[in-house]
Amino acid sequence: MTHRVINFYAGPAGLPLPALQRAQDELLDFAGTGMSVMEVSHRSKEYEAVHNEAIALTKELLNIPSNFKVLLLQGGAHLSFGMIPLNLLRNGRKADYIVTGNWAEKAYKEAKLVGGDNVRLAGSSKDLKFARLPKAEELNIGQDSGFVHFTSNNTVEGTQWKEFPKTDKPYVCDMSSDIMWRPFDVSNFGLIYAGAQKNLGPSGVTVTIIREDFLEMCEAQDLPSYLRYKIHAEKDSLYNTPPTFGIYLLRNVLAYNKSIGGLSAIEANNQQKASLLYGCIDKHPGFYKGFVTEKADRSVMNVDFFMPTEELTATFVTETKKAGMVGLKGYRDIGGIRVSTYNAVSVKDVETLVDFMEEFVRKNG
Amino acid sequence: MTHRVINFYAGPAGLPLPALQRAQDELLDFAGTGMSVMEVSHRSKEYEAVHNEAIALTKELLNIPSNFKVLLLQGGAHLSFGMIPLNLLRNGRKADYIVTGNWAEKAYKEAKLVGGDNVRLAGSSKDLKFARLPKAEELNIGQDSGFVHFTSNNTVEGTQWKEFPKTDKPYVCDMSSDIMWRPFDVSNFGLIYAGAQKNLGPSGVTVTIIREDFLEMCEAQDLPSYLRYKIHAEKDSLYNTPPTFGIYLLRNVLAYNKSIGGLSAIEANNQQKASLLYGCIDKHPGFYKGFVTEKADRSVMNVDFFMPTEELTATFVTETKKAGMVGLKGYRDIGGIRVSTYNAVSVKDVETLVDFMEEFVRKNG
Repeated sequence: MTHRVINFYAGPAGLPLPALQRAQDELLDFAGTGMSVMEVSHRSKEYEAVHNEAIALTKELLNIPSNFKVLLLQGGAHLSFGMIPLNLLRNGRKADYIVTGNWAEKAYKEAKLVGGDNVRLAGSSKDLKFARLPKAEELNIGQDSGFVHFTSNNTVEGTQWKEFPKTDKPYVCDMSSDIMWRPFDVSNFGLIYAGAQKNLGPSGVTVTIIREDFLEMCEAQDLPSYLRYKIHAEKDSLYNTPPTFGIYLLRNVLAYNKSIGGLSAIEANNQQKASLLYGCIDKHPGFYKGFVTEKADRSVMNVDFFMPTEELTATFVTETKKAGMVGLKGYRDIGGIRVSTYNAVSVKDVETLVDFMEEFVRKNG
Repeated sequence: MTHRVINFYAGPAGLPLPALQRAQDELLDFAGTGMSVMEVSHRSKEYEAVHNEAIALTKELLNIPSNFKVLLLQGGAHLSFGMIPLNLLRNGRKADYIVTGNWAEKAYKEAKLVGGDNVRLAGSSKDLKFARLPKAEELNIGQDSGFVHFTSNNTVEGTQWKEFPKTDKPYVCDMSSDIMWRPFDVSNFGLIYAGAQKNLGPSGVTVTIIREDFLEMCEAQDLPSYLRYKIHAEKDSLYNTPPTFGIYLLRNVLAYNKSIGGLSAIEANNQQKASLLYGCIDKHPGFYKGFVTEKADRSVMNVDFFMPTEELTATFVTETKKAGMVGLKGYRDIGGIRVSTYNAVSVKDVETLVDFMEEFVRKNG
């Protein structure tokens, strides 16, 4: 029996066991080729079938309209932070960025490097330590805005846009830490990007979903080709050698997602996990204190909370580890505990943690 | 017994079986963590040990001087084509590019997009269909040149710079298809980049070796951070989430390379494989005709040759496949046969192919 722990890491994070087992089984001989999927040409029919299936499953699971392209790129959200303004903010186009956390602020600063004054701050909750999202009346989105950038889930702070920001402008969104947590309407988005390493697969693959009119904005002929969305779209993400093993694992994860009932089943799991965790926190307000100040903004993917002392926090981390649960230490700038409950974390995993939390209050509260 | 074939793909290409078996064995439980290496945080001590070992082994195997940094990036050679001029050719610095094949020409064209007239053609063998390298007297390298870019091995055409171009300027080099084929003097290089998917590991990792004075040239503050070599160097390639599984496999390959005696042992293997193949071609000049016109320029990594008819070429591809040898079809623009004999291809693999080639002449010559 293989030793496995309960993985609450914030990313790279746990992956569904069947997706990994499939990879293990065929690591030396993939699709009867007598080679690892890593060893076959990206132009081979065997690899192309995997590549196309990963794209088709992304479209199917997210119910992506036909006027979008799914791209499988590299460089994570960080490279996307730069590619977005380089592709979309030439010719004086303007954009409004909502800054709701560590990653949203990085996206904004990186866009500013390229776009300067054309990149505007539509709203920020930094003064509140990002402990809630800005309210509708706190947002200032220009009528001349080409798009509104936001971060759908704030991994560090544990806030999440359950209802997306109110605007009639198209969204550009970093969904790295919550894509595929539930169904949503893709049609209002001009561009969605997500590093795979939380809900989708291993690090090194960036799933990018781009609407045709946004592709047409990418007219920058003087940009190096790798940085141009349009070139990747024209070549179905085979312009250059893609990260074939990462895409293969993405395919395995998506096929597993489909097999368990798709995003509505996954959402039900995620809601149940969140309600178990927040239920426990709310039950013991004198002991567990959530970081997020507005219940409506609480993330279903990352649950941040504090305990009365740093010593108790350290004990909590040590004892959960002994009990086979890892990755619970809070982000360095915030401290406390962070429970990341991405799709691969089961309800049973969270029940185990919540049982531990109840016991921990009884002993230490 | 796992079914394995002899893999002559041009890239992604075969990997050493022990490196893959190690990955398979611990795919669900890496370093006793109870997680796949894909599932652990890139900030965990277990992953960091792999990351640092991959860098240390690269330095050790290539005997890299201490005034160089090894970076583990994404985007393959294609993204490097753009990053090089974006980082190194600001402030009017000039560079000379030698165009010796399909990939060298891409590097030159991509650099031109950014650098314009500051990117100059130092020499080209395109008029000769890249069937040989330019000779020393055909190169024109400016006295004001910041660096000379060349492609150490031309994967498509099967030429290779056994002696590097004569110049007193620092080299910038795409070594994607022959890095680690033998020891060489790194100190003359300002920057070396290599997509991993031929001699190093899976696609999705770009090994980049940069000299300190070249890092200091990267002063472009207005570039998105992911595109700046200096930022990756300052953070030891942990500025953002690296492609952790790819780097882990790279580590496995490099550890295997060391275990078999390092680059001098690997070079001996490679020389033997090349001499077997070119020996067979030269023995049957009426049947096998090498693409490369100068023997000194023949690649030890990619061996291109033609047969008397396209029908025979097609039969050769079909029959080798039946005999368990894949990836022999030549590149689309050239045709014929291409045998890629990267490090993971054994002498025995090549002997099997050469035996087949001898038999094929007997039957069809």
